[in-house]
Amino acid sequence: MSKTNRQFVLASRPSGYPKESDFDLVELPVSEPNDGQLLVRTIFLSVDPYMRGRMNSSRGSYAPPVEDRQVMTGGVVGEVIKSKNSSFQEGEIVQGNLGWQEYGISTGEELVKVNPDIAPISTALGILGMPGLTAYFGLFDVCQPKAEETVLVSGAAGAVGSIVGQLAKIEGCRAIGITGTDEKINYLLGDLAFDAAFNYKKTRNYRHKLKELVPEGTDVYFDNVGGKITDAVFPNLNLRARIAICGQISQYNLTEPELGPRLFQYFIVKRIRMQGFLVFDFINRYQEGLKQMTKWLHSGKLKYRETIVDGFENAPTAFINMLKGRNIGKQLVKVSDL
Amino acid sequence: MSKTNRQFVLASRPSGYPKESDFDLVELPVSEPNDGQLLVRTIFLSVDPYMRGRMNSSRGSYAPPVEDRQVMTGGVVGEVIKSKNSSFQEGEIVQGNLGWQEYGISTGEELVKVNPDIAPISTALGILGMPGLTAYFGLFDVCQPKAEETVLVSGAAGAVGSIVGQLAKIEGCRAIGITGTDEKINYLLGDLAFDAAFNYKKTRNYRHKLKELVPEGTDVYFDNVGGKITDAVFPNLNLRARIAICGQISQYNLTEPELGPRLFQYFIVKRIRMQGFLVFDFINRYQEGLKQMTKWLHSGKLKYRETIVDGFENAPTAFINMLKGRNIGKQLVKVSDL
Repeated sequence: MSKTNRQFVLASRPSGYPKESDFDLVELPVSEPNDGQLLVRTIFLSVDPYMRGRMNSSRGSYAPPVEDRQVMTGGVVGEVIKSKNSSFQEGEIVQGNLGWQEYGISTGEELVKVNPDIAPISTALGILGMPGLTAYFGLFDVCQPKAEETVLVSGAAGAVGSIVGQLAKIEGCRAIGITGTDEKINYLLGDLAFDAAFNYKKTRNYRHKLKELVPEGTDVYFDNVGGKITDAVFPNLNLRARIAICGQISQYNLTEPELGPRLFQYFIVKRIRMQGFLVFDFINRYQEGLKQMTKWLHSGKLKYRETIVDGFENAPTAFINMLKGRNIGKQLVKVSDL
Repeated sequence: MSKTNRQFVLASRPSGYPKESDFDLVELPVSEPNDGQLLVRTIFLSVDPYMRGRMNSSRGSYAPPVEDRQVMTGGVVGEVIKSKNSSFQEGEIVQGNLGWQEYGISTGEELVKVNPDIAPISTALGILGMPGLTAYFGLFDVCQPKAEETVLVSGAAGAVGSIVGQLAKIEGCRAIGITGTDEKINYLLGDLAFDAAFNYKKTRNYRHKLKELVPEGTDVYFDNVGGKITDAVFPNLNLRARIAICGQISQYNLTEPELGPRLFQYFIVKRIRMQGFLVFDFINRYQEGLKQMTKWLHSGKLKYRETIVDGFENAPTAFINMLKGRNIGKQLVKVSDL
């Protein structure tokens, strides 16, 4: 008797924040792998801000949208449970983009093997996966911080931001975080040893707060958020500041595009360099990044936290909560046991 | 009997476009140079967009403002008419920032000698001066264009923009200009061999026009203007586009800051790199730039035009007209004969 595979498919394209009804849970028999393919049982599903863009129709994203009624795109860690591909053995743990479903079929080409002896397998979706590499290449390559400089990060308690601040500290920089709850502030200052942080939801004037917390000015701004927070950073930037645009989560769920102050004059006055990037731009250097991140993780220089929601059926809720900033560190959905 | 020196001093800080009454013409005796100093008779005075920023109180410029009742800042080319500095001889032509006045005193430290045999001396304020070097370093160093790429320049018929397009052609790029009169369009397409250009004052939808003129997309955007023109460029940018922010003249004379669409999401999708710069950032490489520009000028690969207003008393008018885009190429004031 064939097992059942549950999937979340795109039911409607959201206006504003996604709702649970924008996703449909469908059931279908688990597929059989063909020659060269393998079948993966999902253990952890990752939900990430970029997925919000994939729910829109095509305008202006870097990847094609999820089609109507198609499985939501997403990275998973899972176990190979059937293999007709000689490169993969049953029982191996793999990571790859198999979408929001309990079982996925793959040719193996885009899968990466995960060694459970190195770290908990969930880290392949977090600090030793896409978010970790995003922080690594975004900070070191795009921003090129130097020791003693001040690195400011927005979305600082998220999967990427929480790593950026720690990497900044490793580099000998001062790390400042902007985040949205006092619990996150405590996490940043206590567990992660950020030098300063503030809760923007409790701050009336971001600009004054930055002036107070960062009197020396910001040399590097790693932006996950955009909008009014980023507007307020510009007056605080130092000469030759570098900005990495990693995300603009404040803008993803607007029903109408927001206007903002024009900021380009700051670029002349302060000779700012700003660059947008995707982790995929560095795909040829993933091994370098993972090796270094693993080393720091093992030596205790890097810490991480995960916010794990139990049960595949709760994936939309986990996703929506993550977009609203209810996670600390990496937001995951636990789909099945290891 | 002592000669008279006329100066324009800052009479009031403008709101919006400067008016003639924001400048006062004052007369005073010509100073005598002390030991180590020299006296320069102004021949050409340069009026440039940056001066508008110096008329504001200090907020957010890269240089201190002109003080109340002080001489307006500005570059001149002039003749040394008295020298108590052994490095300079009477009769030599020099270029330097001596301000809006008919006679200036200098220690010589910030003066550059101008060789009248190389090119007309006015070029030391234009194609072989600050605007030429701005175009050279801004295009080649900040934007790093490659042959076959498309380079778009705003303010394309101005002192800097008209050179940027020509340098792009020399590099083997396609050059596209945005400017504000049909006469300027003819100049760009006819004299300077730009590949395409449009008159934004006669264009309703900049974005559609760019799509039509630049179907291949923009690889490099050299921005002198900002505002709505720059907004419209973003959808036309290609993957890994580079932007140099050289000026934002559309914003300098606003009475209230203008809001605009938030553009930072484009940076992620297209991995845009944007950098603001000042020519002074490259001061250690001026000789390299001037040597190359002179070579191209002599070989006919670079052309230039000047808009010259006669008479020192007309400097404010020349400045205001330049801010309104009434010049083609470099705007100069002729103060006296060579």
